[in-house]
Amino acid sequence: MPYEHTATRRIEFSETDMAGLVHFSNFFKYMETAERDFFEAAGVDLIRTKPGELVGWPRARAECKFSAPLRFGDTIDIHLAVKAVKDRAIDYQFRIYRRNEDGSRTQAGKGRMTTILAQLTDSGTLQSIELPADLRERITAAPAEALARPVAV
Amino acid sequence: MPYEHTATRRIEFSETDMAGLVHFSNFFKYMETAERDFFEAAGVDLIRTKPGELVGWPRARAECKFSAPLRFGDTIDIHLAVKAVKDRAIDYQFRIYRRNEDGSRTQAGKGRMTTILAQLTDSGTLQSIELPADLRERITAAPAEALARPVAV
Amino acid sequence: MPYEHTATRRIEFSETDMAGLVHFSNFFKYMETAERDFFEAAGVDLIRTKPGELVGWPRARAECKFSAPLRFGDTIDIHLAVKAVKDRAIDYQFRIYRRNEDGSRTQAGKGRMTTILAQLTDSGTLQSIELPADLRERITAAPAEALARPVAV
Amino acid sequence: MPYEHTATRRIEFSETDMAGLVHFSNFFKYMETAERDFFEAAGVDLIRTKPGELVGWPRARAECKFSAPLRFGDTIDIHLAVKAVKDRAIDYQFRIYRRNEDGSRTQAGKGRMTTILAQLTDSGTLQSIELPADLRERITAAPAEALARPVAV
Repeated sequence: MPYEHTATRRIEFSETDMAGLVHFSNFFKYMETAERDFFEAAGVDLIRTKPGELVGWPRARAECKFSAPLRFGDTIDIHLAVKAVKDRAIDYQFRIYRRNEDGSRTQAGKGRMTTILAQLTDSGTLQSIELPADLRERITAAPAEALARPVAV
Repeated sequence: MPYEHTATRRIEFSETDMAGLVHFSNFFKYMETAERDFFEAAGVDLIRTKPGELVGWPRARAECKFSAPLRFGDTIDIHLAVKAVKDRAIDYQFRIYRRNEDGSRTQAGKGRMTTILAQLTDSGTLQSIELPADLRERITAAPAEALARPVAV
Repeated sequence: MPYEHTATRRIEFSETDMAGLVHFSNFFKYMETAERDFFEAAGVDLIRTKPGELVGWPRARAECKFSAPLRFGDTIDIHLAVKAVKDRAIDYQFRIYRRNEDGSRTQAGKGRMTTILAQLTDSGTLQSIELPADLRERITAAPAEALARPVAV
Repeated sequence: MPYEHTATRRIEFSETDMAGLVHFSNFFKYMETAERDFFEAAGVDLIRTKPGELVGWPRARAECKFSAPLRFGDTIDIHLAVKAVKDRAIDYQFRIYRRNEDGSRTQAGKGRMTTILAQLTDSGTLQSIELPADLRERITAAPAEALARPVAV
């Protein structure tokens, strides 16, 4: 069962700020890209909408430590690993790598995110729901060594 | 009946890019801020959602001419004027001004936007609908001189 | 000499808005992605920074007509064609296509952008400069039929 | 000496996503708005650029716990308190409140950010620098009770 995924992106001009570097809020968007690709590879919907119903994954917590800047044009690899599959939530770990010209990679950030499966009720509030069995069959927690090891390209 | 509005905003750090200036895509977001404030002042909803129904204003066309750069920390005035109220759409004109330290203002952009009143159907497509009578009572086209004149603070 | 380019992107979750569709301001970012890829293919720098010098392409005008909505997860092709290479500016035309599941494509937007080659002076103002000869050798205007024809994948 | 600040903002339409709520990455932009206002009130520059020199505040770490959703049109108060002033960095705590129609407030998020004073060197790397004395005179750590207490409007 899938427990990790690596997504690849280019840095866009509009993602930089006047310091010449990627604005830090975009690191969280990069994590979301990896989550989308992971869900897709696992055959899971990131959001489900039909008239009168909305089921999605609001975030309970997001964190990132920044260790190297990213710049316009950089190619990055975003590695996602599932830390834990809980009753109503999933914990992810992310590592973001910049590809260097010499073929090496530099870790630019390390993040965590906890996301809750929730339904939007008619009264407009979010109600957490239990992860369905078929989702538990498609996603599993990564083994400890997969969370710790340096990520190969 | 209201036909113009001026919204005021500060430029955020995250709205700049590596050239040190506001990324041009944000000018369109500034126009939207002025539209929100205009609708609010006129007592009109920008979007209406209830279970199984979604009525909003998708854009048919947006345009901006950029005449001066904006920078982090600038205070801007965004002037909206209604050019035309059509059967199923509204045409807006926007002018964006930067407030200078000496009390003068510099025009940074001039824009236009056509926005359509539309309903999202069950099949997921957008269906334009006629502007209701009460909305026509709340919004009207600006007189020619209001579209042409320099805008006072 | 290159005069057109097609870039391909996925729509990100963070690019949608509460209407369930891509926020229109992102169409302009998609155009910029195609411009980056075009410049890269042509061997031209989109921005050049070194201590005390900044040369880039501020936008003079940007426009988009929206003909079909884009949604989270869509794959889009962004076709750029050079309309005109001027003394100090380039005019682009863009067409944005959504790839449908049946293999067909739907035009979601058609845009135009005029971008000026400019230097940031020490006093902080932008000064337009003439396109250098080597850039003129790398970029040329598209023939009329390339601007008009439906774009093949 | 100032150690806390409350900034106020409206939620923009473009800050929502297809779940109908504010995209979580914007909470980090709201923190930055409060930091800008705090620096401004304290008479400190958030970024300093002159030819050949760039001094700013790259982020070392950012975190947010999300406790209630924010929606288009909401008015929010973003409370910043300085947790610690270090040799080369500042630690902030943020609390984000949604103003409710009945005059009460709901805590929507609680965040932390560590930001480093750094200079961009000629070789393009970031070099942390010591906080200058005049900055230490303008910013101080908040007393423990200011970090813990519920924030009054």
